[in-house]
Amino acid sequence: MNAPHDKAAFRHIGTRPVRPDGVDKVTGKALYGPDFTLPGMLQGAILRSPHPHARIRGIDTRKAAALPGVKAIVTGADFPSLDSIVMAVGETASDIVDVARNCLALDKALYEGHAVAAVAATTSAIAEAALRLIDVDYEVLPHVLDLEDALREDAPILHDHVFTKGVTPKPDKPSNASLRAELMRGDVDAAMAGAAVVVSGRYTLEPVHQGYIEPHACVGSWNSDGQAQLWCSSQGAFAVRSLTAATLLIHQADLRVTPLEIGGGFGGKTTIYLEPVALLLSRKAGRPVRLAMSRGDVFRATGPAPGAVIDLKLAAAADGTLVAADMEFKYHAGAFPAGAAHPGVVGSVGHYRVENARLIGWDVLCNRPATKAYRAPGAPQVNFAVESAMDEIALKLGIDPIDLRLKNAVRPGDTQPDGAPFGAIGFVECLEAARAHPHYTAPLRANTARGIAAGYWFNYGGPSTAMVSLGEDGSVLVATGSPDIGGSRAAMAIMAAETLGIAYENVRVIVADTASIGFSMVTGGSRTTFATGLAVVEAAQQVIATLCARAAKIWRVAADQVAWRDGEAWCLAAGQEARHLSLRHLAARANNSGGPISAQVGLNADGYLPGFCVQICDVELDAETGHVLIDRYTVVQDVGRAIHADYVEGQLQGGAVQGIGWALNEAYIYNSAGLLDNAGFLDYRMPVASDLPMIDTVMVEVPNPGHPYGVKGVGEAPIVPALAAVGNAVSRAAGLRLRSLPLSPDRVHGAIESAREA
Amino acid sequence: MNAPHDKAAFRHIGTRPVRPDGVDKVTGKALYGPDFTLPGMLQGAILRSPHPHARIRGIDTRKAAALPGVKAIVTGADFPSLDSIVMAVGETASDIVDVARNCLALDKALYEGHAVAAVAATTSAIAEAALRLIDVDYEVLPHVLDLEDALREDAPILHDHVFTKGVTPKPDKPSNASLRAELMRGDVDAAMAGAAVVVSGRYTLEPVHQGYIEPHACVGSWNSDGQAQLWCSSQGAFAVRSLTAATLLIHQADLRVTPLEIGGGFGGKTTIYLEPVALLLSRKAGRPVRLAMSRGDVFRATGPAPGAVIDLKLAAAADGTLVAADMEFKYHAGAFPAGAAHPGVVGSVGHYRVENARLIGWDVLCNRPATKAYRAPGAPQVNFAVESAMDEIALKLGIDPIDLRLKNAVRPGDTQPDGAPFGAIGFVECLEAARAHPHYTAPLRANTARGIAAGYWFNYGGPSTAMVSLGEDGSVLVATGSPDIGGSRAAMAIMAAETLGIAYENVRVIVADTASIGFSMVTGGSRTTFATGLAVVEAAQQVIATLCARAAKIWRVAADQVAWRDGEAWCLAAGQEARHLSLRHLAARANNSGGPISAQVGLNADGYLPGFCVQICDVELDAETGHVLIDRYTVVQDVGRAIHADYVEGQLQGGAVQGIGWALNEAYIYNSAGLLDNAGFLDYRMPVASDLPMIDTVMVEVPNPGHPYGVKGVGEAPIVPALAAVGNAVSRAAGLRLRSLPLSPDRVHGAIESAREA
Repeated sequence: MNAPHDKAAFRHIGTRPVRPDGVDKVTGKALYGPDFTLPGMLQGAILRSPHPHARIRGIDTRKAAALPGVKAIVTGADFPSLDSIVMAVGETASDIVDVARNCLALDKALYEGHAVAAVAATTSAIAEAALRLIDVDYEVLPHVLDLEDALREDAPILHDHVFTKGVTPKPDKPSNASLRAELMRGDVDAAMAGAAVVVSGRYTLEPVHQGYIEPHACVGSWNSDGQAQLWCSSQGAFAVRSLTAATLLIHQADLRVTPLEIGGGFGGKTTIYLEPVALLLSRKAGRPVRLAMSRGDVFRATGPAPGAVIDLKLAAAADGTLVAADMEFKYHAGAFPAGAAHPGVVGSVGHYRVENARLIGWDVLCNRPATKAYRAPGAPQVNFAVESAMDEIALKLGIDPIDLRLKNAVRPGDTQPDGAPFGAIGFVECLEAARAHPHYTAPLRANTARGIAAGYWFNYGGPSTAMVSLGEDGSVLVATGSPDIGGSRAAMAIMAAETLGIAYENVRVIVADTASIGFSMVTGGSRTTFATGLAVVEAAQQVIATLCARAAKIWRVAADQVAWRDGEAWCLAAGQEARHLSLRHLAARANNSGGPISAQVGLNADGYLPGFCVQICDVELDAETGHVLIDRYTVVQDVGRAIHADYVEGQLQGGAVQGIGWALNEAYIYNSAGLLDNAGFLDYRMPVASDLPMIDTVMVEVPNPGHPYGVKGVGEAPIVPALAAVGNAVSRAAGLRLRSLPLSPDRVHGAIESAREA
Repeated sequence: MNAPHDKAAFRHIGTRPVRPDGVDKVTGKALYGPDFTLPGMLQGAILRSPHPHARIRGIDTRKAAALPGVKAIVTGADFPSLDSIVMAVGETASDIVDVARNCLALDKALYEGHAVAAVAATTSAIAEAALRLIDVDYEVLPHVLDLEDALREDAPILHDHVFTKGVTPKPDKPSNASLRAELMRGDVDAAMAGAAVVVSGRYTLEPVHQGYIEPHACVGSWNSDGQAQLWCSSQGAFAVRSLTAATLLIHQADLRVTPLEIGGGFGGKTTIYLEPVALLLSRKAGRPVRLAMSRGDVFRATGPAPGAVIDLKLAAAADGTLVAADMEFKYHAGAFPAGAAHPGVVGSVGHYRVENARLIGWDVLCNRPATKAYRAPGAPQVNFAVESAMDEIALKLGIDPIDLRLKNAVRPGDTQPDGAPFGAIGFVECLEAARAHPHYTAPLRANTARGIAAGYWFNYGGPSTAMVSLGEDGSVLVATGSPDIGGSRAAMAIMAAETLGIAYENVRVIVADTASIGFSMVTGGSRTTFATGLAVVEAAQQVIATLCARAAKIWRVAADQVAWRDGEAWCLAAGQEARHLSLRHLAARANNSGGPISAQVGLNADGYLPGFCVQICDVELDAETGHVLIDRYTVVQDVGRAIHADYVEGQLQGGAVQGIGWALNEAYIYNSAGLLDNAGFLDYRMPVASDLPMIDTVMVEVPNPGHPYGVKGVGEAPIVPALAAVGNAVSRAAGLRLRSLPLSPDRVHGAIESAREA
């Protein structure tokens, strides 16, 4: 890997050109999930459980099937059997079965909104009417929503076959605790005993939804010869392909998934809900079938981030040096086993040097929709606890909160939670930039307070494929398998243009379907600009190598007598140094000098580095009402190097805003019957523009030597410290420690009142 | 290039598996040109000239524009100016300008049906109504349809800027003769003088249409930021891209063309008609626009094959050895300059050793739709003349017609018309196979006669790109840029499966859009199975190399210690010979052994070889009516090696049937006003199943050493000798030489009557 170029030498990296997909999107021309249609397409609808927990004794679809216009009805029984999936898929079969059963319940409905049956009909109205004619014989079972309740001895058990993973000896009876994860080092008890200060408390967070603007939708078409197609929006068409093919037991090559534009995902569109159901309906009906969720469906039946109950003790020496962390946390898994406890354990105190740690996490089943990834999955919850405790320690020891963090911050060479040393990370640089930012020292008005918090995300690389090809006119196309959520077309075009030495406008980027390009992992985990970008750069370098070889052929010189500079091949042969051929000229002669020029590169990108983020939040607290107003907000993050600066800043702002929403208002509200009371944006309160000031951003650039342009992932980290930055500001404004999110007016007011009464 | 494998070793090559796109097509699910829709799409309609030749003095669109529902109107003036195209495109600008002016006339309408203006409206009915409100001020000009008339001194000249190419000195005035092509060798006059037999005559053929079942259709969408998309059926999405981008002066990378299924092309869908018009309308309307032709539009305004007038003298020695050919022919170019004279000159007697030749061809402009490629373009017309003359010589010298051809047939090492030696051609093998075929010696019933003819096509290779990628489950995807007209998905799957050593069903092939794969030339010229197949095989070989490298990595052995056999990597290291990993296992481990596995290969395929074809035709002639019935028909062709035998046989049958139609019935019938009288399948008589016997085929396999599986192109050659095979049979049945096609009952009856009277 080359060391990052000198920034001053860049022509495109870090600039802010027009987004190539912008016009399509703002004029409404871009095709999103619900926009795609096919001739003869049927409209599908899904019957969902009205109960949070119920055995399905039978489903009578006869009346519905008799309704004119109804072309197909499917239930969970239409999926391949458990046994056949296990035989085909092997060790990961239980995950696949869970995915299938989440798409359509089989023996039990596990949460309100769990899909139970689906209909395809000539119109949506007929499909909806048919749903009302389906008679499901439910045996209503006791349900459980709460984390602590779900772990009681007498709790209703969701799955008879789930035994807690990660405990020894292997449990002898099923449990709602689906996973235990732990990370232990040093002697926590001894360190606690010797510490100058120990803060402790229980922190609680509610599950929150990613809140993407576009509900899930797809069109599926499954032929009688077994070949199928899907058109849908997702964070990864290949993930849709592999999951759908596995649940339906078809060859991946027999399922072509075409990605449509995606209206937000944030981790929530890395799985499938409708896709196999649309295909099952299509196979029965012999026609393409469209399925789309309502906003209520999205809230009730797609994966929020887990809520949590976290017990934390954090201890420091008198100078602020952290000496021990002792934490046990429980995360909602929802209706099926999940894996958020792992990154929770890893990410909780990984940004600090803490010699002694006992970190234990649990994923807990309950009668809620299965939780899914949401921006830095698993990290914001534990970070909220750790960074709140850090704030307490700073107050107790009278240390500036940034200084406290600087004292403990991990530096390059320090040990990561997984044991490997940290590479060229920029946590210290972020903390110093935050301390130097005018915001940090700005005077505070009355009733306002300032909180800061820091967090990180380990980021990821992983498998990506990219293709670069030349038009006969020298314009350049880049194809990737990575859906463009946050401006990746622009970022890929910038990196390709930079590498090739040509104008940004001469490069166009598309997101190819699963049959047109090699495998690529989902757009998520802050991996796309890094990993897919790496594949784009390598493909562009291969194209350059071919162009130089063609020039050598044309000039009849040896291949090593040609160099690429500024978008042109230059002859190095003695006496011929004035000879040069531009990309455009070489492209025009491509077919006659050896054939069309393109290169496809697949790689599993290593060399990614974590992203560190520090946030400063000023709040104004109305003690009479408990209302919190975000007064000023600054996000400081080590971004490695920004490729398209606008979209990096957008990630920083967006991540912070989602964290602010989690901190202040967002929550699933279930009633005592286990039914969701706020399945819509009117009642599920996400922050909107008028709720917030402009979020200021500082891009600290500590380049990643593992990427030719120094890229580090930027999408995940900015949500991580936002909850605590807000929480610390509100706690300081209120003069008391608030450990339960959201900090909605009723709760804040209640806490203030309770403290006054105490 | 490897020598072709031993045929017995093949597992898939030459088999007849189910066509992977078959179910889609027979169930009506496949999306063809007219099937694609987009949200907000407008319906377009095209106003066409009612005159064969007229100056357009003005177009008043105001009334049409005022019609509610009309969203855009465009005329030829909406294309970029001639000057700007010349500046951008350079030397080929005149071709591009011609393409643009054929899409929408500018100063003159040059044939009945020439597009003059286009409307986009919310419904087709409104668009059609708007057409009737467009007021075109035509100055009707004299027109010319006939080849000889067009070359007269006083003929109406179509283009003031067209001066005959290929003549010296450069002409000083414009002419309807747009091109002269010639091929001269030896001393023709001396050879003629010394010949034992000289036959001569004038042959005439009518223009005929390819008659593809699917009329042209497209959807275009052009954004205000200059990026455009097209969805259309064509023989090559890249040809659509380059022509459309050039006529509209946009970057190729800014125009993504997605190929839909194609309902036949035969050369006629290698150009554009509607595509830039749909985009111009879309740009004005700000919405996607659909345009589709009616069958009448297809006949009136898309390119038929040229008709011809051919004067031929062919001379032979007493033993049948050809000594001289003297030919001058004229081809319809139609409304714009064309290039069929070149292949006509090259292909006329290229299959025989003729030491002395004077071959001169002309392309002639006239007020007919611009002619376009049609299966072996330029060859069937001259072959009809040459093979008719050969039949006369055989009769005159009393030599068996196959023996006559064997005596003169070119053999490997003989000189091709272009000067290079013929490679491993199989003409002699075809003639011998025909002579040995039971058909050739079967007794003839009363009123029947037998004709034979031979012909060839030089075939082509050219640029193609293919991509092979592996699913995580080991299923294999192949993407090409070559539209599947005649079963190429099946052929590519067979070659990929053969190369990889896996089951045919584990390979799926798609036709990718212009942004998802590198450049590929049109599907045509008998190049696809050869050239794109070569790219597929090379991409599969690259995938195998990667798989072996991954196995070596897993086994920790050197890369050269792994071999690929029967779909598995085998370890060659001493003592480890039992180790093997299947493609499926290696695919499952791809991401963790180095990344996703795929390979994209672009090449300009050389090493193609001509295809030779011999046909035997028995006809029954009803002398009372002149009606000809095809009684028995056999096609013998050197196919190199059949990849999917069904589709090779289908090409042989289809080519012969199209030749039979040209010979017997098909013709454009214009009235004296220059208007087409038979613009529909009721009046334009193509042969249907009930007109024909089952066409017998003999696949002679003389493998092409320039292709790993021995492929030679097969699509073009079978139409070439069909006209003369039929003509020779009918002439022998009638007892007189018939030199004017079609041999429709009226003409045959008239000829017989004339001969009787004479």
